[in-house]
Amino acid sequence: MALKVVICGILAWAHEDVKALLGPLAEVVYFDSVDRKDFLKGFQTGGKYEGAVALFRDNNLTDKIGIFDKELVDGFPSSIKWIAHNGAGYDQIDVQACKAKGITVSNTPGAVDDASATTALYLLISTFRNYAISERSLRELKWKPNGLAKRSHDLTGHTLAILGLGGIGLRLAELAHAFPMRIIYHSRRKVADAPVWCEYFEDVEQMLAQADVLSVHVPLNPNTVGLVGEKWIRALKKGAIIINTARGKVIDEEAMIRALEDGHLASVGLDVYPNEPEVNPKLLEFPHVTLLPHMGTETQDTQHKMEVRALKNIQDYLKTGSGKDIIPEMKS
Amino acid sequence: MALKVVICGILAWAHEDVKALLGPLAEVVYFDSVDRKDFLKGFQTGGKYEGAVALFRDNNLTDKIGIFDKELVDGFPSSIKWIAHNGAGYDQIDVQACKAKGITVSNTPGAVDDASATTALYLLISTFRNYAISERSLRELKWKPNGLAKRSHDLTGHTLAILGLGGIGLRLAELAHAFPMRIIYHSRRKVADAPVWCEYFEDVEQMLAQADVLSVHVPLNPNTVGLVGEKWIRALKKGAIIINTARGKVIDEEAMIRALEDGHLASVGLDVYPNEPEVNPKLLEFPHVTLLPHMGTETQDTQHKMEVRALKNIQDYLKTGSGKDIIPEMKS
Repeated sequence: MALKVVICGILAWAHEDVKALLGPLAEVVYFDSVDRKDFLKGFQTGGKYEGAVALFRDNNLTDKIGIFDKELVDGFPSSIKWIAHNGAGYDQIDVQACKAKGITVSNTPGAVDDASATTALYLLISTFRNYAISERSLRELKWKPNGLAKRSHDLTGHTLAILGLGGIGLRLAELAHAFPMRIIYHSRRKVADAPVWCEYFEDVEQMLAQADVLSVHVPLNPNTVGLVGEKWIRALKKGAIIINTARGKVIDEEAMIRALEDGHLASVGLDVYPNEPEVNPKLLEFPHVTLLPHMGTETQDTQHKMEVRALKNIQDYLKTGSGKDIIPEMKS
Repeated sequence: MALKVVICGILAWAHEDVKALLGPLAEVVYFDSVDRKDFLKGFQTGGKYEGAVALFRDNNLTDKIGIFDKELVDGFPSSIKWIAHNGAGYDQIDVQACKAKGITVSNTPGAVDDASATTALYLLISTFRNYAISERSLRELKWKPNGLAKRSHDLTGHTLAILGLGGIGLRLAELAHAFPMRIIYHSRRKVADAPVWCEYFEDVEQMLAQADVLSVHVPLNPNTVGLVGEKWIRALKKGAIIINTARGKVIDEEAMIRALEDGHLASVGLDVYPNEPEVNPKLLEFPHVTLLPHMGTETQDTQHKMEVRALKNIQDYLKTGSGKDIIPEMKS
């Protein structure tokens, strides 16, 4: 009997790739359930997913079956050994529950770097130059607002602090270095293969004190909820800018809004929010901030690349029993 | 008697620099006239500008005294030898009239490169990724529009055609090369010191046929009005994008709008328009295009740099009788 793989997500671009990558190795079954209960039933004897060894997973089924919390993971049969998540952030998966059941989780780290870092660069330019308010002014037939130059800056020569120099942070560093901006960063440890012009700060607050803009690139997990809070925000210079393309909950939103209100922060550029698709109405009251609706990887090029990468992780597992993109919590 | 210099423009940032740069060399008189007639009267015997040898000039007085057309230039006394324009584009100055009167014109080429090229890069990201429509959707409380990934692309790996590889074009090339994009260009002649990765095309249409996006960086003059017209627009691939941060009149706007309407162009990113501050209402009907109200150099860093550069051109003239930034039409 062939190994079974369940495509538990709506593929947008990689239909042909599924056949090429998994076809010769496994029987591929597509998600076809009405809700969580029905989904779990599919894994039981006689069910359409019975005996599956690996799942391709995408957040785009969350409205049907919910996140991969302990309850869902505990409901999986012991046959499942691999969950290949399609995305960089896997905060919708209970990693500990998977670990306890002997399920390995992979994500698609490299595939999102370029598109996400480009979004961060866009938010940097938009906030430094006050382009969000300028575009709205033009479309309201008011041409340009007065006095914007006074509040606007070139990126060139200013200092960008990167919190978390993983793939996305490093890619942003490269793009911003082209201006050049001065690049400083903090990660849990110094990144061995970072370019020499990326200056490491072991002490976060020392880094923040030198930054004109802070860009956040840490994953959301129990240790990073509210990581950028009152203290770190106030450690930034008056007039600094915060960019967030990671996850909304990594920043204490109320503290950030207070700092916008009292002018400590000049602006923010956000692609992510604590309770998407909800956006805190207070944010909309700042006419000059730039707010994108989680567009970090919203391109066909990158989404195709991500889907292929997730499928390749399954292919690797089927062929070798392991894979390149195992999430950090499960390595060693 | 000290040489006299007239600051014929509203300085925003360089008040201190005027004293330092020109104070030891000349008497500095600030513009103080109600209209064109009054302005010209100031140069007559007993007038406040009498005997001036050089003018600092900014477009920001155009609403008071009009552009520097033949009538105005012909009205200047023979004492005036230098007009130091504060800006890269000097299309508001009748160069031939100045030449005929023996007046040298300088501009501020290098000073604008960084800020203008950053604007072009912003428009590139915004149009490739459909961020203008995304931001408006969020502020209308609709989160993200459906199906945008299908119409959105990464910059990386795509081909950017630069029309006019001067200072701004070259700076954009550097920023886009960081992704990397493939960079191809056309100028009147091959740029000798261009990086090797900038591919020169003698034939414009051959270049356009390979471009995913065309960015326009030629000055406006009688030879470039409508330069990017029907034929060149149709020489682009279907689905291409046009970026314009140069001058609106360099593109045949009606031909561009037709190409947007019939889908030949996927999008445009514009910072300039033929009759600013007017914007063709037809452009506003395309929800996905990105329209900025001429923000190319709207930062205090760059505007300060530009003012200083224009003042330095006057300083050089006063000291040496010549200067670095003489406009091309007046060189040799």
